[in-house]
Amino acid sequence: MSVSLSCHRCETRYDDDTRVRCDCGEPLWIDAETTSFAWDDCGNRSGMWRYEAALPIDRPDGVARAAGGTPLVRSPGLDDVAGGRVFIKDEGENPTGSYKDRGSAVAVPRTIAAGDDVVGTVSYGNMAISTAAHATSLDRECIVFVPEDISPVRLELIAQYEPTVVRVGGEYGALYEDALELSDRLPITALVSDDPARISGYKTALFEICESFAPETPDVIALPASSGGFASGVWLGIRELERAGLIDEPPRLCLVQTAASDPITRAFEDGSTDPTPMSSDETGETIARSIGNPDPPSGARALSAVRDTDGAVVSVTDDEIRAAQRRFAVEGGFCVEPASATTLAGVSRLADRGEISAAESIVLVPTGTGFKELGTGETDVATETVHRTDLADRLESLLPPRGE
Amino acid sequence: MSVSLSCHRCETRYDDDTRVRCDCGEPLWIDAETTSFAWDDCGNRSGMWRYEAALPIDRPDGVARAAGGTPLVRSPGLDDVAGGRVFIKDEGENPTGSYKDRGSAVAVPRTIAAGDDVVGTVSYGNMAISTAAHATSLDRECIVFVPEDISPVRLELIAQYEPTVVRVGGEYGALYEDALELSDRLPITALVSDDPARISGYKTALFEICESFAPETPDVIALPASSGGFASGVWLGIRELERAGLIDEPPRLCLVQTAASDPITRAFEDGSTDPTPMSSDETGETIARSIGNPDPPSGARALSAVRDTDGAVVSVTDDEIRAAQRRFAVEGGFCVEPASATTLAGVSRLADRGEISAAESIVLVPTGTGFKELGTGETDVATETVHRTDLADRLESLLPPRGE
Repeated sequence: MSVSLSCHRCETRYDDDTRVRCDCGEPLWIDAETTSFAWDDCGNRSGMWRYEAALPIDRPDGVARAAGGTPLVRSPGLDDVAGGRVFIKDEGENPTGSYKDRGSAVAVPRTIAAGDDVVGTVSYGNMAISTAAHATSLDRECIVFVPEDISPVRLELIAQYEPTVVRVGGEYGALYEDALELSDRLPITALVSDDPARISGYKTALFEICESFAPETPDVIALPASSGGFASGVWLGIRELERAGLIDEPPRLCLVQTAASDPITRAFEDGSTDPTPMSSDETGETIARSIGNPDPPSGARALSAVRDTDGAVVSVTDDEIRAAQRRFAVEGGFCVEPASATTLAGVSRLADRGEISAAESIVLVPTGTGFKELGTGETDVATETVHRTDLADRLESLLPPRGE
Repeated sequence: MSVSLSCHRCETRYDDDTRVRCDCGEPLWIDAETTSFAWDDCGNRSGMWRYEAALPIDRPDGVARAAGGTPLVRSPGLDDVAGGRVFIKDEGENPTGSYKDRGSAVAVPRTIAAGDDVVGTVSYGNMAISTAAHATSLDRECIVFVPEDISPVRLELIAQYEPTVVRVGGEYGALYEDALELSDRLPITALVSDDPARISGYKTALFEICESFAPETPDVIALPASSGGFASGVWLGIRELERAGLIDEPPRLCLVQTAASDPITRAFEDGSTDPTPMSSDETGETIARSIGNPDPPSGARALSAVRDTDGAVVSVTDDEIRAAQRRFAVEGGFCVEPASATTLAGVSRLADRGEISAAESIVLVPTGTGFKELGTGETDVATETVHRTDLADRLESLLPPRGE
């Protein structure tokens, strides 16, 4: 399938479908082949392949078929802290536990179709796990470039799919550009965070949200922001649905960053169109590991998405993230990773500033399951021990009288 | 909603919907209100609530709405080891990462509707995690009875939802009966593994599988077996679809146990109708922790399910489980827990015995995600370290020439 790509900023169009960046420096995305698109035409395929007509590849085999189709659940227990009517779009319910599967489901088969035998990726988190799973399920080799000092836990999660793991010495952050350059020169495509085909896959999350609300549109969608890739995909989806006449007023995109590394927030507050990369002196440690990106390659596009939809970018602290993660579990029943918990903490800040009203619908998008990060045994939960034979007596004192 | 319950063995019917066991000793299940049921009538609700008309409660709020609706994926890379055409029904893509959510989604709201303020459960694995999540999302207290020596990792997974955790001294296996007795006497309902409402929820996994294949029916469905509860639910679903005329010949139910504790396999091989409980001298350690049940309360019903569908029960060793878990990841792209990997190892044994033929469709049901059990950092993966500036040279030697 031949596709064209275009630049969100200068609107230059390219017919070379191996390009990933515009001459102006901005990342490209893939143009939709059609602007005629109706919910009723989507058929009954499961998951994200319901929107196959709007995607740049035909439905592939393998684990890609299990991507998307995640639930959207009203979660009133979070309304008070969020300041509106909360819905949770649980992207943790993807085959490798994160929204990255939507991107890998499109990008990995597209790379293979383009003739490269080897798929690469620059990640030591959810993107590495997802890319390795999708490549191996299509019987292709995958090379994952990780930092030299990757933790054994992260390594174990990636290694289960048996990619070639290369620890890279030197400045890991510079690998994004290296990967693009190597992909041009060598028979490997390194699927970086804002690879155009990935972005196409991400738009299906927005399609699912909007179809669930149709003919209404949610007022606010809150996403964690790191590279800006997911926000770009959601914005691409909004633009396509607007052109198709399926939404009138777009949802306001609210991006949330960790205060430990928040170049997009800073640019938003400064009124800049481009985030300024943060140096290692300016960034700090955070429990929201998946989103601590000091130099987001799709940062400018993410800022445009926010301004185009009248949204906002906010940063939250680790304490706020911990509190929000607890609320997701205890009020919502959802186990989300810290990076995902930022969404609740972020809208809470916006509500405090009067930017969300109680009647508004807010879709929080936890992008990854928390189950990958639990299991360290680090918990200080209070428990008591009761012998089996004393259990009835102890329970009687714990429980309210029946019927009261 | 008033419901009747009946016994699979003696067919006695009860109108007391708080009963869980028949006078004959067997567990009860909830009778379907109607035998008229057609796929086209199911509407467009998401997840398991598509089959609300066949369930004993109305769709509840909370995390229950996210249960079910898991993907079914053709996975040809596993055909050679399974001996047939493999499909994976990935139950790990439930909100708490296992099929238990289907049961909790029905049983927890039903308990609350019956007037008990407190929900209990006897588990330190997936059922505890799921029950605690569903209870808290409906703002109800949950008490989880765990063994005195529960591992910190398991405790952490359960504790995130903030139930009351009671460590029970004495013989943990005897708690199943204790829990039923306490539920009768005290204002708590302890949702054991074969609670009738849980079984109703489990049948939706079978409905989803059969609807995906309709108008065909899969030849084989392979499940891990522990208490026999999931097998009972799947069998209940088969019976209801047969009565509704939606399937002609039922799929053959194949249950797989860990060789370390396999009373159902032994009874199947002996021709017994009831499994004989295994003593602690007879059972061993296994990596398939979730299914090492020496005294399965729904064991007799699971055996009837197998015989009624012309299926089989087999046991597999930890070495076979490890090999199968690796195949799920490396060929399928799915991260499954060891208990779930038994399904592939089990059908492989059946194929070796000539009980599966190459043209047959085999649905493997990994019941829980492997992500909860990874993250220990125990991996012996081989990696190499390359400095960023040497990466291009090293890659050239790793990669095949472009275009060959």
